[in-house]
Amino acid sequence: MEAKIMVDTMWVLITAMLVFFMNLGFAAVESGFARAKNCANIMSKNFVVFAVSSLGFLIFGWGLMFGDGSGLIGLKGLFFVGGPDNSPATGDAYQGVYSAISWTGVPLWAKFFFQLVFCGTAATIVSGAVAERIKYIAFIMFSFVMAMLIYPVIGHWIWGGGWLSKIGMFDFAGSTVVHSVGGWAALAGVIMLGPRIGKYDNGHIKAIPGHNLSLATVGTFILWFGWFGFNPGSTMAADPGAIAHVAVTTNTAAAAAIMSATLTCWLLIGKPDLGMTLNGCLAGLVAITAPCAFVSVGAAFFIGLIAGVLVVMSVMMFDRIHLDDPVGALSVHLVNGVFGTICVGLFAQDKITGSATGNGLFYGGGLKLLGIQLAGVVSVAAFVFIAALLTWAVLKSFMGIRVSRQEELRGLDIGEHGNEAYAGFQVFTTE
Amino acid sequence: MEAKIMVDTMWVLITAMLVFFMNLGFAAVESGFARAKNCANIMSKNFVVFAVSSLGFLIFGWGLMFGDGSGLIGLKGLFFVGGPDNSPATGDAYQGVYSAISWTGVPLWAKFFFQLVFCGTAATIVSGAVAERIKYIAFIMFSFVMAMLIYPVIGHWIWGGGWLSKIGMFDFAGSTVVHSVGGWAALAGVIMLGPRIGKYDNGHIKAIPGHNLSLATVGTFILWFGWFGFNPGSTMAADPGAIAHVAVTTNTAAAAAIMSATLTCWLLIGKPDLGMTLNGCLAGLVAITAPCAFVSVGAAFFIGLIAGVLVVMSVMMFDRIHLDDPVGALSVHLVNGVFGTICVGLFAQDKITGSATGNGLFYGGGLKLLGIQLAGVVSVAAFVFIAALLTWAVLKSFMGIRVSRQEELRGLDIGEHGNEAYAGFQVFTTE
Amino acid sequence: MEAKIMVDTMWVLITAMLVFFMNLGFAAVESGFARAKNCANIMSKNFVVFAVSSLGFLIFGWGLMFGDGSGLIGLKGLFFVGGPDNSPATGDAYQGVYSAISWTGVPLWAKFFFQLVFCGTAATIVSGAVAERIKYIAFIMFSFVMAMLIYPVIGHWIWGGGWLSKIGMFDFAGSTVVHSVGGWAALAGVIMLGPRIGKYDNGHIKAIPGHNLSLATVGTFILWFGWFGFNPGSTMAADPGAIAHVAVTTNTAAAAAIMSATLTCWLLIGKPDLGMTLNGCLAGLVAITAPCAFVSVGAAFFIGLIAGVLVVMSVMMFDRIHLDDPVGALSVHLVNGVFGTICVGLFAQDKITGSATGNGLFYGGGLKLLGIQLAGVVSVAAFVFIAALLTWAVLKSFMGIRVSRQEELRGLDIGEHGNEAYAGFQVFTTE
Repeated sequence: MEAKIMVDTMWVLITAMLVFFMNLGFAAVESGFARAKNCANIMSKNFVVFAVSSLGFLIFGWGLMFGDGSGLIGLKGLFFVGGPDNSPATGDAYQGVYSAISWTGVPLWAKFFFQLVFCGTAATIVSGAVAERIKYIAFIMFSFVMAMLIYPVIGHWIWGGGWLSKIGMFDFAGSTVVHSVGGWAALAGVIMLGPRIGKYDNGHIKAIPGHNLSLATVGTFILWFGWFGFNPGSTMAADPGAIAHVAVTTNTAAAAAIMSATLTCWLLIGKPDLGMTLNGCLAGLVAITAPCAFVSVGAAFFIGLIAGVLVVMSVMMFDRIHLDDPVGALSVHLVNGVFGTICVGLFAQDKITGSATGNGLFYGGGLKLLGIQLAGVVSVAAFVFIAALLTWAVLKSFMGIRVSRQEELRGLDIGEHGNEAYAGFQVFTTE
Repeated sequence: MEAKIMVDTMWVLITAMLVFFMNLGFAAVESGFARAKNCANIMSKNFVVFAVSSLGFLIFGWGLMFGDGSGLIGLKGLFFVGGPDNSPATGDAYQGVYSAISWTGVPLWAKFFFQLVFCGTAATIVSGAVAERIKYIAFIMFSFVMAMLIYPVIGHWIWGGGWLSKIGMFDFAGSTVVHSVGGWAALAGVIMLGPRIGKYDNGHIKAIPGHNLSLATVGTFILWFGWFGFNPGSTMAADPGAIAHVAVTTNTAAAAAIMSATLTCWLLIGKPDLGMTLNGCLAGLVAITAPCAFVSVGAAFFIGLIAGVLVVMSVMMFDRIHLDDPVGALSVHLVNGVFGTICVGLFAQDKITGSATGNGLFYGGGLKLLGIQLAGVVSVAAFVFIAALLTWAVLKSFMGIRVSRQEELRGLDIGEHGNEAYAGFQVFTTE
Repeated sequence: MEAKIMVDTMWVLITAMLVFFMNLGFAAVESGFARAKNCANIMSKNFVVFAVSSLGFLIFGWGLMFGDGSGLIGLKGLFFVGGPDNSPATGDAYQGVYSAISWTGVPLWAKFFFQLVFCGTAATIVSGAVAERIKYIAFIMFSFVMAMLIYPVIGHWIWGGGWLSKIGMFDFAGSTVVHSVGGWAALAGVIMLGPRIGKYDNGHIKAIPGHNLSLATVGTFILWFGWFGFNPGSTMAADPGAIAHVAVTTNTAAAAAIMSATLTCWLLIGKPDLGMTLNGCLAGLVAITAPCAFVSVGAAFFIGLIAGVLVVMSVMMFDRIHLDDPVGALSVHLVNGVFGTICVGLFAQDKITGSATGNGLFYGGGLKLLGIQLAGVVSVAAFVFIAALLTWAVLKSFMGIRVSRQEELRGLDIGEHGNEAYAGFQVFTTE
């Protein structure tokens, strides 16, 4: 028992560190896909967002998410992780106010740290979609709201003992809780901000190439690496069979999605664009995040295959409807977050989960699980999109959310930070 | 027992993740040492190669390598890791078709994931040597063959219960299985492709400097970091004494090789070239990979010292015989892979390995172990070089393996991918 | 017991790997904040310094630090970690000459590897402060002296059973042992070298912007990530409560410091400079390093808050007194190393440490602990600053420590290494 607590705690902390490291991945992908003139701003956003999340989740978010309460929100131990708790005790021995996460036998601060890095991920997803035009201060404010309110409410619904968990929705590592929550908030931001100057002038879609594909590739590799913390770590216990299984489903989906996205792009556009290959990888990872512990390796392969096609088509679709998302965050996190959540209802197998989930549609389980997953998707969409839209609207009216035209043209690095990301290099500022 | 399985599984998975992360290291080193105009292509190659390996090793490679069979290849449970298996059971309790790896008591998918990342490493080594002129599709095809056929066959010989393991060859973490296999395949590719345009015009050796030494340094640090998974992880069990010992021999060899490569370069060329310092590090790491668990820390120091000298001299030698290897992959992985394998026959000590290996030549063991190691080196060379040469030849006749002269001059980024790695920067395309 | 040794060894090795990885963080931060023309030199310094430390600490440093001896230095088992030892035995069962570190039950090589990466960190801190003007060979020589003599002596005083540990000084993970030791040595170097050409001409402070803020951000993220090895790993045992607590105090201090440094900069300079945000993070991490296991999460928040303000003011102060530190290493490591050490005397709580430390001033412990901490700060300052000054002076007289004016203007990459970090890019060499 003693040894199990040691091992589990170590596993939870190390995988949490890997997820923390994904912040660098997001920063590198986003800045690599953007223009040099906005690079310092993007790095600032990605850096500060985890600090904001750390404080917001500590002050209030954790309690709202995991505190004992109603089906909608946590109500006990709300502030500063301050409720009574005797973790790592579990089961009947547990005497505290964070019952929904008392199933894992690790100390309270280990639980907090692990959950915190997931909260930070949801907040950082927004960053990419609103890049190259958002005011720094508005982004900081929005991130506080995400980490303290929006994310924890959904987290409570699904992971904190709330109503969606009670009706039987499953989201193992957060295709919905993390990725589509980030995605819906990003969508609200994209709509409120409008496209970058010149992106859709005269109905023509202008490609705005990223300034550093090396950096974007570095970032994607780091995200892939970090996902081995994200998914296998979500066991929150070093269960040998489960963590090995999840590592392989996760990797297989990524591999399949890389191949299918590359191929789809090759066929549709004529050449295998590196950006599509990278986003294919991320799409596969997002899609497998909810079902990774519930499906077979073979199913993971097919999930990845579809995710890779979906992301390429989504990128084109969002451009066609003039929603300007510089890094493809909507296609990766929103579309595939939804898709992955649905996949639980399609591919889950009782024989893998020990009858926890019930079988999905493709394994004879009928529409029950699928229906619940869809109910989860829809209700999360409604809450997050509206909450985010309101937040953006309030910020817009109080301080503005978009930089001036002149600043956008010149670059946010100088305008927002007085920085130049690549001093000494000859950089051409394309509009 | 239960706790041991938990700890061992965690160790195997975490070290496997570190080895996975080496993909980023290879990508960064290769692209950093190459020209900006080929950077997106190199990133694409390094990214997609792990996806290809993941699928190829899953579909067929694993079974060929670890399935029970003859001395030459695995014959059972060939497809989709589909044979019967009751891991983590070991010894007499083991009832499955992957007996050769039944010594480690971790779940099957943990074994698979760990072995997969090694397979991916072998495949990615080829990438650097053939950079800046190979067709993207040809590289993808070759990688499939590497991951599904060439690598697993050698893997079977040495780690999968095949004939080389039976005669007593030792290769702890893969100086031969991974590095020289990658190296011989790379050599075949270099010969079939010929040098880059302008590299050896008029008998003159033209230096083609890399576009981003920061990126190359980042990559080498990541490889060094990942090697702490590669070597200590190859215990496939968290044996305290062994993993601590291997961590220190690994690091000591790297440190010694860095110093000796830097000094050798300083003496021979007049200045300590950063590229040589970086390749010195990798050379030391490759050389200690086979013997890391069999030799003392003092021996590791000398192995590293020699490796650092070897790599500098090899780089010069390959240039003199006009084998164009843009990143020094042959000098690092082939030359030092062979050297490290031989070092087992020279430096191994029974008192370190509990009489597993026998003593090497320098510790009174005579020529027996050394002879076996040499037999391994030669037979691996013969098989891999010929198999790779055939594969390249088939690909050449079916689809061509080299891009057009015009594309090579303009850069593979635009030609193969329609990408520009550094949009907005003023980059001069040197030929 | 057996399982505990396995888990502890794994924890020590994995966290040591994370600390090793910080070498890349330091390399990236330093080169990113410097000019392109010196980038290959900076990468070389940061790369080779860990090789030098590895050898120096192996040959002599370890014995000097942990060998049984006097209150001032270790005297037994000095060379090549060669003294008798029966680790992982602890307590009465321990029979060896490294008693001061016999409290942790892991194999000797695990202890060595963990301590080595800390030694390497101290040595690498110097690199940033002396960047863009120091001779490569002089830096290598100085690093040997740091790793073999200066660092181990202080290490012996505080962690090796020496006089400061005996009077009751506490420095959990090395705000003093690592960071301020590196900082004092760096200060001596900065004084001996003088400022870069043009930095303080005519009494005017000239801003010399870094060439790659992406790289600097990448580096800072990596350092933050590595700090989860640095601080939680310093338990040298996988004690669930302690490691989870330390992970959260560490992260909270970093988050608070990021916010306070960003805000301070915004208020004082008018814009939130990315460099200040990054250095704010590092300042918070350095400051929490000594007290991380002794203080509450709330106290960590305040420590971070102050650290973030301190670093911004320090950067300005050092510029005002014309001490040219290109990356802010003095403000981060020296100032906040001292501050963090003092914080133990202010914020430590017996209820957190099980009465090990006594309460700090703010928790009713009076001035006792604070006084001891201050005594430690002052004596370390005196020894390291004088020893480093002497070392620099000796090196200066024998080989010179600063490159020629012409080389400095042209860049150290070409002068010291014959390299160009960004071949093919148009780079303007600002003086």
